[in-house]
Amino acid sequence: MNSAVSEPALIGVDWGTSSFRAFLIGAEGEVLDGVSSSDGIMHVPDQSFEAVLERLIGAWTAKKSLPILASGMITSRNGWVETPYANMPLGACGLGQRLVQYKVANGALFHFVTGASTEHVGGPDVMRGEETQIIGASALGLSEGTFVMPGTHSKWVQVADGKIVDFSTYMTGELFSALKGHTILGTLMAEGPFNQDAFEMGVKAGFGDASNLLHNLFHVRTLPLMGKIPQEATADYMSGLLIGTEVAAAMGEVEVSGEITIVGRNDLTDRYEAALRTAGLQSRRASEEIVAKGHFLIARAAGLVR
Amino acid sequence: MNSAVSEPALIGVDWGTSSFRAFLIGAEGEVLDGVSSSDGIMHVPDQSFEAVLERLIGAWTAKKSLPILASGMITSRNGWVETPYANMPLGACGLGQRLVQYKVANGALFHFVTGASTEHVGGPDVMRGEETQIIGASALGLSEGTFVMPGTHSKWVQVADGKIVDFSTYMTGELFSALKGHTILGTLMAEGPFNQDAFEMGVKAGFGDASNLLHNLFHVRTLPLMGKIPQEATADYMSGLLIGTEVAAAMGEVEVSGEITIVGRNDLTDRYEAALRTAGLQSRRASEEIVAKGHFLIARAAGLVR
Repeated sequence: MNSAVSEPALIGVDWGTSSFRAFLIGAEGEVLDGVSSSDGIMHVPDQSFEAVLERLIGAWTAKKSLPILASGMITSRNGWVETPYANMPLGACGLGQRLVQYKVANGALFHFVTGASTEHVGGPDVMRGEETQIIGASALGLSEGTFVMPGTHSKWVQVADGKIVDFSTYMTGELFSALKGHTILGTLMAEGPFNQDAFEMGVKAGFGDASNLLHNLFHVRTLPLMGKIPQEATADYMSGLLIGTEVAAAMGEVEVSGEITIVGRNDLTDRYEAALRTAGLQSRRASEEIVAKGHFLIARAAGLVR
Repeated sequence: MNSAVSEPALIGVDWGTSSFRAFLIGAEGEVLDGVSSSDGIMHVPDQSFEAVLERLIGAWTAKKSLPILASGMITSRNGWVETPYANMPLGACGLGQRLVQYKVANGALFHFVTGASTEHVGGPDVMRGEETQIIGASALGLSEGTFVMPGTHSKWVQVADGKIVDFSTYMTGELFSALKGHTILGTLMAEGPFNQDAFEMGVKAGFGDASNLLHNLFHVRTLPLMGKIPQEATADYMSGLLIGTEVAAAMGEVEVSGEITIVGRNDLTDRYEAALRTAGLQSRRASEEIVAKGHFLIARAAGLVR
């Protein structure tokens, strides 16, 4: 046996609404192999989750019986095995103690991570999947501060000593899609390259007047109507307006302490970085792949790997 | 001739995006007859506006050649004859001086009312049709104060001495539809009778924290998910949340002075009345039919009727 190549010790599955990712993880928490696909839970017909797993990670499970940890919307009411929500503060130990076990037809034992919930004035807040990413971040030395997780439902998460202490969700991404696809605002949008100026103009409008979003959105119509921004820049203006409004709201609601870490490495996280900069805030980045580190740390806390 | 029955002197047409209304108006401004239909401009195929008029008000135009005044989205770029936007302050005289004439194929002369525009920090604001309603309200003694005009795009209009002096648009109605029909928020909504408690709970959440709408909207998911409001009440909660947010934003942006008048007489205006009451504000009502009075006053200012 070549000592430089670790034996597989764990499979981590991050199974969301619209995407699937799995990692073959070694005894030191290193990622040995990975797959990703668009087989999110909303794309799986008739709850045929086992068939998806056989197709995507059957090669890993055939060789050796490995513990499998799964997180994300797969643990929701619309997923496969619904797990409860754990309360704050929440770290690797708390998640490890609350794993929900499920034996699949072929005998493999699954360990489903719970979601996390918190309670604010106005109502509860919930997450499924992001908690595992946050735990993973601490393995990279990112165990304090504010984590911004852009997406369909953006999360702003407060972390102290490697534990999640509070978080808030913002409907920003889904609202953007609904406005663009299903309101009059979309009708004055034309395709074009990313327009940084229009985006920043939107960020400033949103950040400067977050309480007026219902009115400010109408400018997404009037500005191109009056020729003040080109139609090719209108979607970027709206993107900036929504993200700027989110940043202002989050800064007002959450006590942002310590460094800000944006989770992700794509076009959307570039926009959040720019919006935070426009708001006078520095940030750093963490890869979304920290989720595999999270699977490893939770599995280790549960005694599933040494 | 029976002196109790006035001769028709004017036809007023209020032609919006989704509806059509026309009024046969007497020499004193009284409404002699009226029609309404769902032939809004977005439902008129191939710009066949003249065919719609022939079908809906052909009986009026056949008898006598009357001046026809038209207002609403029919004067927009997506309508029939695009008219410019007039600036503030704007009253019957200003609108009467700016009528845009157009002779249709059968020889009838149309007078199209201009839209109105104003400029705020952040961008321009525009209206088409509401200006004519506001002018009409002054004929009912409602010539001062704040007018709230609920709808797809709500307008809050400041009126002084019968003139429009400023206004702001809120995307509330269209946002409600897009969120209900095209986001995850709609999936936890079930049909049910109007739930006043859930609506007022939403109003309070929105009115109390308007800068946090992107986050508060997520409660439309978590409250029914956690069993805190019934699924049958979720749409009413969201309606209250959006209207409460609008009221708070409008109270912050516009200097609301004088009495508040809600224009309209339907379920939606009931909700605005309740939301204003929850916010500690009294309001009165004006019928949407004030638009016919507006047509009459603008036509008289233009010398089209005596």
